[in-house]
Amino acid sequence: MSYLIRNVSVLIVPESGECRVDEGRDIHVQDDRIAAITPTGTPFRAAPTASSAAPTPSASPGASPGGADGEVIDGTGLVAVPGLVNSHTHSPMVMMRGAAEDLSIEDWFNQRIWPMEVNLTPERVRVGARLACAEMLLAGVTTFVDHYFHADQIAAAAVESGIRADLAPTFFSSAGAEAVDAAIATARDLRTVGPRVTASLGPHATYTVGDDDLRRTAEIARAEGFRIHLHAAETDDQTQSSVDRLGVTPVQVLERTGVLDAGALIAHGCGIRDADLRILGQYADRVTVASCPKVYLKLAMGTVTPIKGLQSVGIRIGIGTDGAAVHNTLDVWEALRMVALTQKQREQDAEWMNVSDTLRLATRGGAAAAGLADQVGALEPGRQADIALVDLFGPHCRPIHDPRAALVYSVRSSDVVTVLVAGEVVVRDRRLTTLDLGEVLAEANDLAHTLVDLSRGGAVQHYAP
Amino acid sequence: MSYLIRNVSVLIVPESGECRVDEGRDIHVQDDRIAAITPTGTPFRAAPTASSAAPTPSASPGASPGGADGEVIDGTGLVAVPGLVNSHTHSPMVMMRGAAEDLSIEDWFNQRIWPMEVNLTPERVRVGARLACAEMLLAGVTTFVDHYFHADQIAAAAVESGIRADLAPTFFSSAGAEAVDAAIATARDLRTVGPRVTASLGPHATYTVGDDDLRRTAEIARAEGFRIHLHAAETDDQTQSSVDRLGVTPVQVLERTGVLDAGALIAHGCGIRDADLRILGQYADRVTVASCPKVYLKLAMGTVTPIKGLQSVGIRIGIGTDGAAVHNTLDVWEALRMVALTQKQREQDAEWMNVSDTLRLATRGGAAAAGLADQVGALEPGRQADIALVDLFGPHCRPIHDPRAALVYSVRSSDVVTVLVAGEVVVRDRRLTTLDLGEVLAEANDLAHTLVDLSRGGAVQHYAP
Repeated sequence: MSYLIRNVSVLIVPESGECRVDEGRDIHVQDDRIAAITPTGTPFRAAPTASSAAPTPSASPGASPGGADGEVIDGTGLVAVPGLVNSHTHSPMVMMRGAAEDLSIEDWFNQRIWPMEVNLTPERVRVGARLACAEMLLAGVTTFVDHYFHADQIAAAAVESGIRADLAPTFFSSAGAEAVDAAIATARDLRTVGPRVTASLGPHATYTVGDDDLRRTAEIARAEGFRIHLHAAETDDQTQSSVDRLGVTPVQVLERTGVLDAGALIAHGCGIRDADLRILGQYADRVTVASCPKVYLKLAMGTVTPIKGLQSVGIRIGIGTDGAAVHNTLDVWEALRMVALTQKQREQDAEWMNVSDTLRLATRGGAAAAGLADQVGALEPGRQADIALVDLFGPHCRPIHDPRAALVYSVRSSDVVTVLVAGEVVVRDRRLTTLDLGEVLAEANDLAHTLVDLSRGGAVQHYAP
Repeated sequence: MSYLIRNVSVLIVPESGECRVDEGRDIHVQDDRIAAITPTGTPFRAAPTASSAAPTPSASPGASPGGADGEVIDGTGLVAVPGLVNSHTHSPMVMMRGAAEDLSIEDWFNQRIWPMEVNLTPERVRVGARLACAEMLLAGVTTFVDHYFHADQIAAAAVESGIRADLAPTFFSSAGAEAVDAAIATARDLRTVGPRVTASLGPHATYTVGDDDLRRTAEIARAEGFRIHLHAAETDDQTQSSVDRLGVTPVQVLERTGVLDAGALIAHGCGIRDADLRILGQYADRVTVASCPKVYLKLAMGTVTPIKGLQSVGIRIGIGTDGAAVHNTLDVWEALRMVALTQKQREQDAEWMNVSDTLRLATRGGAAAAGLADQVGALEPGRQADIALVDLFGPHCRPIHDPRAALVYSVRSSDVVTVLVAGEVVVRDRRLTTLDLGEVLAEANDLAHTLVDLSRGGAVQHYAP
């Protein structure tokens, strides 16, 4: 299938420096990739010459200007942005949205979430993941990087919805060797699910998975080409506790167990210390960090990811929502705005984490966090056609002095009109083409009470980092 | 005109304690007020008895169940919330949205905003205010508390749109006695504009208006029954500068000039110190503070409003957006979420600023900040019928374990469906009834470039607090 997205503005996110918005462009999509981005009306397949770069006024509106282009999507008045990447989430936790409010991190884990998670079943995870995929696609999120149980069910939901996903089956050492083996086996199985699904290994955290299991995970990752997605140094308290108990920081644990060497996505890292940066810098080609600041504020964690320090040693940063049991949405627009705001606050520098850098983290940074740095995260010929078309005509965006600023500080997920993943239209005119949203919501509503039932007692884990 | 909002869930915001959502209610609106809130189907005007509190299943859908009720608005599946109050803004600054990004507070004022404001004309202010009113109404904001130039034009836009407004004509001492007199005269004139417009006196700030002018403002306010709306102690730097230059804090300036005694709305107050709280507590019956935290983070101001301390001495707090030249939206849903998040962070306490308290600030707190504590801010018989009907059926809100949490942490402005102000339907099915949005946007787009033109040189003021 081919598409011509005609007469659209295009957000160009370079690897460094200022982003820009090019107006009056045609995006030519062939199969799963962006074939070309040309001045609007330029016949595609014509040999590119200086003269063919000029608009062709004779191209009639509504008709495909070139035989190689398929269906025309009118982009007039819209901005095409690289599909956003949710760099760290637990997608099925949408089922617990709003069920654990105004709690300390300890109570959130020990009184609510981990006791609730004894209720997980494949069906409930699948229903939650379908809802999560629906929410994300409608908001222009085309890739999510997930860490959860029953990841095969999440993969099925992802495939059904058309979203791209990197899935890490979660495990705790406390669940025993068989559970660890099963999670790793699931990761292996996920590799054959489909072209938009990749797998990572998912030890939960440095404080819930022992060094032996981390070492074994790292060995398998190296041998089989997996990346490792895990929580580490989520808060400074965790880091201090690690130093007190083990004599080393969580980052040092990751180094000594070979996790950094294998390649890792570290979720949160708010407790990463200056002394850790030198270590991380040695693995900057294969280690990324995901920042989800709404969560850090909501749980009063005391700090946010030290992005400036991490970037200073070459670490690439993605933006995530974490699970909706604490973030309440899977809205990466909201998350990227929170990154900009909290990073300015953290560094006491209003010029820091500017509009261009923020957009870069949500796109190219997320692509790196997903292990897809060369595939997604930018609108460039040859990359996957993961594209969100955004309407900046709402009164909350107007007038437009700077469309990049509108994307960071004004836009809402509901401004996303049309979304493509791998060249497939998955959202058209604000409606999912792949899922029946009414059915998805009804299923989620029907099962929601089963997830938050605490009557069974027990917990999948205890938070005592 | 009368309305029956039938079969709606109603957010009840008590003066203290937990909010709740009552399902299956009818809101009976007569003229500009809420006449009654009853279990759905209860005939209105019937003497309330124990038995009439039960639903009347025989009431046919779509028809008015009582002769006293007018048009029926189907509230099925919606939550009625008190219209939100934007407790501090400069509404026409939507015209500069996105034109001053990634700047320190000094550069934001001195390089951009105050030089841009030499371009203000009555027409440009009116066009901006119309856009602002459109944005706010569509988002369920039914009252805004404004501080700007050409306030007569803002009043005209407010009246045209149907929104409720408290307007403070801004003045600087540097503009001379005539400008001060003119602003105060405008405030007097605003009192006759209409029932939904009230006026306050608007000295800009303690650092831009001298003590003599503040004293005179306070005297006029006391004599004529005005409140005073001004900026004070916006940052701790401002407070320290005041102490260094004058030997007193901005709050002490407000006390010694009689501003606190006259009754004041203090914008921001991030630099309010513990020693100021004792002073403020003496005026808690007439002094309120508006908090706009997105702005504090974006300008890297280093701290946020000390709400916990202020509430401990009885000060009521409203939530605002400040102007869109820094906040980028006039979205009070966004602002209230930022209050919850940043207050938890400030106090290092995830249990603080809980969902109920946050909703209370955005409604009852805002009503107090607007000088309308007994008129708006809650859905209760006898109060003004300022009501927003919100759709919590979006995938970003589902499933609903706690609708209050959804209102604070999941909802978007685009979930607002229908809005009434003073019993008038001003937004119906997400469309303005009072303004032609296309025309409003076109006018704003046409004039936008004139506002950001720096070619004239000069500035309305210089920031050196």
